[in-house]
Amino acid sequence: MSLTMYDASIPVFIHSLQNLKAILEKAMAHAEARKFDPNVFVSMRLYPDMLPLNRQVQIASDSAKGAAARLTGTEAPKFEDNETTIAELTARVSKTLDYLQTFKPEQFVGAEERPITLQSSRGTLNFTGLNFLRHWAMANFFFHVTTTYALLRHGGVELGKKDFLGPAPQV
Amino acid sequence: MSLTMYDASIPVFIHSLQNLKAILEKAMAHAEARKFDPNVFVSMRLYPDMLPLNRQVQIASDSAKGAAARLTGTEAPKFEDNETTIAELTARVSKTLDYLQTFKPEQFVGAEERPITLQSSRGTLNFTGLNFLRHWAMANFFFHVTTTYALLRHGGVELGKKDFLGPAPQV
Repeated sequence: MSLTMYDASIPVFIHSLQNLKAILEKAMAHAEARKFDPNVFVSMRLYPDMLPLNRQVQIASDSAKGAAARLTGTEAPKFEDNETTIAELTARVSKTLDYLQTFKPEQFVGAEERPITLQSSRGTLNFTGLNFLRHWAMANFFFHVTTTYALLRHGGVELGKKDFLGPAPQV
Repeated sequence: MSLTMYDASIPVFIHSLQNLKAILEKAMAHAEARKFDPNVFVSMRLYPDMLPLNRQVQIASDSAKGAAARLTGTEAPKFEDNETTIAELTARVSKTLDYLQTFKPEQFVGAEERPITLQSSRGTLNFTGLNFLRHWAMANFFFHVTTTYALLRHGGVELGKKDFLGPAPQV
C-alpha cells in the first residue's frame, strides 16, 4: 500500500487552514480584550520589503487552491485579494476551505505524473505533479501559514506551536 | 499509480534542508560583508518567549531525522544541541542531510499504517504513519525552517522566497 496524491495534499491543506483560521480568531480576540483595533495586524511586516500579513494569508489560500486545481486539471476560483480586516481574512480562509472540501480522491488519480507548468519570477517552470506538490506547493503553503503565525507572535498575540499544529488527529 | 511514504518524506526534507543550509551561508556572508559577527543571529528571537534561531535549526533537524526514524522503525542519532555559531548550525544541517541520505525507499514499505506514539506537552499522541507525517512531522519541520528564514529576514539578511524554495526540480 501507499498513499494517494489526494491523501498527500487536500487533508494537509484543510487541517492547516483550519488551524490558521483559529489563529486569526485568537488575534482578533487578543486585540479586542486589549481594546485595540485588530486590523492593525493586517499591514504588519517582519521587514519593510517583506509582504504584510494580509498578503501572507492570501498567498497561503492561493497556494492551497492553486495546487488542488492544478493537480486535478481544473480551474480554481479567483479571489479578489481585497481583504483589509482580520474578519475578511478569516472569511477568505473559510471560503478556501469550502472549495478544498469539494475535491474527491478520484480526481487525483494519475496526478503524480500530470505535467504542471507554472509562470514564476524565474520564468517557466515545468514539474511533474509529484514534484510540484512536494517541492513547491507544499513548501510555499507552509511558508505563508508560518509567516502569518510569526507575524502575530511578533505582534504579541499569545499563540503557541500547539495552535499552529492544531488538534492531533487521533490515529 | 500513487506515491510512497519515502517519496512524500525523505526528498522533501533533503530539498528543504539543502535550502536552509544555503540560507545560513547567506547569513554568514551578509554579516562578514558588513563586518559584524554572524553569530549574533544565533540568539535572535521574534518575541521574547519564542525560541531563538539555534533552537529553530536544531528542531528542524530533529523533526526531519525523527520522522525518518519513526516511519522506518529505526533509531535516529542523537545530536547534542550544543551549536552556538552559524557555522556549527550549518554543520548540523549537513550532518542531518548525511543521515537522511542513508534511507532507502524499501525501508518505508507499510510506513503509512505503522503505529507512531509520541510524547508531547499534550500527553501521549497516537498516529498512523500517514497522519504523523502529513499532519505533524511535515508541519513541524516547515514551521522551524520558515521561522529560521523569518528570523534572518527580520535581521536584515537579503533573502527571498526563492532561497526558501530553492532550485525548482526540473520535471
